[in-house]
Amino acid sequence: MEKAEIGLIGLGVMGANLALNIAEKGNRIAVFNRTTEKTDEFFAEAGALADRIIPCHTMEEFIDAIRPPRPIIIMIKAGQPVDDQIQHLRPYLTNGDIVIDAGNANFHDTRRRFKELDGTGLTFIGMGVSGGEEGARHGPSIMVGGTPESYARVEKVLTSISAKFNNEDCCAWLGADGAGHFVKTIHNGIEYADMQMIGEIYGLLRDGAGKSASEIGNIFGGWNKGRLNSYLIEISEKVLAARDPHGDGPMVDMILDQAGQKGTGKWSVIEAQQLSVPATAIEAAVAARVLSSMKSQRVAAEKIFGSAPGKIDASGAGLNDLELALFAAKIGAYAQGFAVMSEASKEFGWSLPMPVIAKIWRAGCIIRSQFLDEITTAFTAMPDVENLIMTPAFSAMVKEALPSLRRVVAAAVTAGLPVPALSSALSYFDSYRQARGTANLIQAQRDFFGAHGFDRLDGKDFHHGPWGSGLNE
Amino acid sequence: MEKAEIGLIGLGVMGANLALNIAEKGNRIAVFNRTTEKTDEFFAEAGALADRIIPCHTMEEFIDAIRPPRPIIIMIKAGQPVDDQIQHLRPYLTNGDIVIDAGNANFHDTRRRFKELDGTGLTFIGMGVSGGEEGARHGPSIMVGGTPESYARVEKVLTSISAKFNNEDCCAWLGADGAGHFVKTIHNGIEYADMQMIGEIYGLLRDGAGKSASEIGNIFGGWNKGRLNSYLIEISEKVLAARDPHGDGPMVDMILDQAGQKGTGKWSVIEAQQLSVPATAIEAAVAARVLSSMKSQRVAAEKIFGSAPGKIDASGAGLNDLELALFAAKIGAYAQGFAVMSEASKEFGWSLPMPVIAKIWRAGCIIRSQFLDEITTAFTAMPDVENLIMTPAFSAMVKEALPSLRRVVAAAVTAGLPVPALSSALSYFDSYRQARGTANLIQAQRDFFGAHGFDRLDGKDFHHGPWGSGLNE
Repeated sequence: MEKAEIGLIGLGVMGANLALNIAEKGNRIAVFNRTTEKTDEFFAEAGALADRIIPCHTMEEFIDAIRPPRPIIIMIKAGQPVDDQIQHLRPYLTNGDIVIDAGNANFHDTRRRFKELDGTGLTFIGMGVSGGEEGARHGPSIMVGGTPESYARVEKVLTSISAKFNNEDCCAWLGADGAGHFVKTIHNGIEYADMQMIGEIYGLLRDGAGKSASEIGNIFGGWNKGRLNSYLIEISEKVLAARDPHGDGPMVDMILDQAGQKGTGKWSVIEAQQLSVPATAIEAAVAARVLSSMKSQRVAAEKIFGSAPGKIDASGAGLNDLELALFAAKIGAYAQGFAVMSEASKEFGWSLPMPVIAKIWRAGCIIRSQFLDEITTAFTAMPDVENLIMTPAFSAMVKEALPSLRRVVAAAVTAGLPVPALSSALSYFDSYRQARGTANLIQAQRDFFGAHGFDRLDGKDFHHGPWGSGLNE
Repeated sequence: MEKAEIGLIGLGVMGANLALNIAEKGNRIAVFNRTTEKTDEFFAEAGALADRIIPCHTMEEFIDAIRPPRPIIIMIKAGQPVDDQIQHLRPYLTNGDIVIDAGNANFHDTRRRFKELDGTGLTFIGMGVSGGEEGARHGPSIMVGGTPESYARVEKVLTSISAKFNNEDCCAWLGADGAGHFVKTIHNGIEYADMQMIGEIYGLLRDGAGKSASEIGNIFGGWNKGRLNSYLIEISEKVLAARDPHGDGPMVDMILDQAGQKGTGKWSVIEAQQLSVPATAIEAAVAARVLSSMKSQRVAAEKIFGSAPGKIDASGAGLNDLELALFAAKIGAYAQGFAVMSEASKEFGWSLPMPVIAKIWRAGCIIRSQFLDEITTAFTAMPDVENLIMTPAFSAMVKEALPSLRRVVAAAVTAGLPVPALSSALSYFDSYRQARGTANLIQAQRDFFGAHGFDRLDGKDFHHGPWGSGLNE
């Protein structure tokens, strides 16, 4: 029997969909699941694709079915189960075999696992897969971290199954060890910010301008034809249009305003902090989810402080401002996310290719959009630029949209409607373009109480202030 | 010879000052330093206090000089040196002896060290000491984590040397293992926010209202007599008044606007993230320090985006707004810091006493102020309140000051002057008092693309939306 190009362990929803995608694109695949019934069930339902699927009941069968060096995708619950699975798998593997973790791993775990296999003849790939069930089945965005050699072995299979944007594969090797899972984490951080910013604009329209869900859905539908064109705006239009099947109002009006999270947003801001890169818009988005979960406190606080006092203009020019404000803030969030990746790349020795990351996010993943194609172009022209907004194309966009963001944040602040992510993005722009900031006062304070010293603008020697010694921190 | 009440290892600036403070308050102390010359030098300069100091050249002498069970303060560089010192010390210790780390430790290390000594007959205290050199010498704020029994052994010495507020000791036992170092970390996070907010108001006065350093110093001097009365406002007045000894202008105008940091601010926001507590004002302050360090990027960006376009009104009513805005934002930062401690207390099983923490911060530490006395009173009346701003006294203050913060942030945003911490505090208030938020849209999006499900407002069963299945995250 012809050997499989690749193996896959774990036939849960994600694993099964990925396996079907692999088979559908013409690749032979061996599959294994701890519960053999699941393997049989999967195979029985594979239809015409069954020809390219080799269902295996034992590890020996499974290993024997794959062409060496064997790439083996593990698609199981992240964390300890992955370590257990690797331990279980190792005795069966031979020189050159490649263990691929396609789950939602923390990149620190991926780095550790990569290191643990280093020098054993085996190698490890940490693979970020974005796009969920549907993406896994029909075309995800795939972010690969590992050795270039191991990627060369799996490139053909992975590019065959990935999403396409203008016929280009949304799959790439990004660097060693944890590079792929790190980039996936930052993708999710940006996703948090993008969703929160849309939510804030929704709030301004709902609470500040008195628009109904379907009116707001229509506005988003219009914006989806313009510069905000993106999957998240598209689905916002759809969910806002949906009616409650168990009532007679819009579905969203019946949904509890308490958002959950699975941790990748939190990971992304913790890494930004560890790397000392400002990611304030993403932090604001993560904080907003947490605040949403504090429903009972919010209800109690509104009783004390009252609800938002003011209104938002969402007529012609006002509506245009809202669209541009969202656009400007979105640029801020993406600029922060890419800046975090740029610093991580130095810290972990990855040489992350920014234009390629933007490229493979253009389709398949949740934040996919036309906008990412413009980021690709901007980074391709200036791959080493320090910040996305310093590229000529994005400088121009920010210059155009910033006055609108300024007006919208000022109006929201005045109205008492929360816009934490929009205002964090605005503060980021305003701080970033301030040649002479206010940290001179902070340095003076620190020198006063802690004798920390400071540098002088005129470059004269390192100095302390003329305040004598204060009190240390 | 009469035995010493306590021992101290490490006669650097902090350790030497602490030892002198201990002796001065009538306690006998044994001191040891790896370099014996330093011990001799310290002893020679101790003057009248030498009577109560036992200088030791060997570990045997040192141990023998202390009354068992022996409390031994280690005051050396945080990190590995502390572990090395503990290893070196252990063979000399006997049952009941107490190792006290008074350095700037990460509380995770403190928890680990506490655990490592657990069951050995020895015990560990992690002690946060705030107030730097001057505080160490004349009265620091002392935050103790360890067993109550070990604290009982050292309480008399520690309370004798701590700062006093209205004759009350700024020293307390706060909980087990890392409680003291954790509270010190959050103290520093709040300190970052307080300093940044003062810096933002300074920026509005300087760049938006064209005030000189000495004019701004005078304004702060006036505020220091009112509700903003605090050490940080006091020293801001002083540093703004100081003249450059190497030039003819104000000192602050010659200081480079690039602020450094030593890591505790970063630790505080990482822990807030780990605990899922919004600490956005502190995050904004940490980010602002990082942005300050990106001087060359800021200079380049201002060339592209231009400088801040607008003005700030700092006349009568405008100035009053600035004072109240700073006050409101400060309440937000403290509320966030206390909320982080409250969650940490549950997470780590500490039962942190909020009124006591506010109490021991009233003097000795960098954020000391009258304001902390009001926090003490508020938390004493309602020790289990979910948020500082939900206490009647602080609800009233926020209600009074919030309109000013709103006007100031709107004006700053319009003027293009960065107020990241002030606006984060405002967003926090506005989100916190919003009974019906916008996370219903986020839940709808998440259910659309990831089938995450949502709860309904009417409490009907857990549901998915009528959008069919989308694409998972």
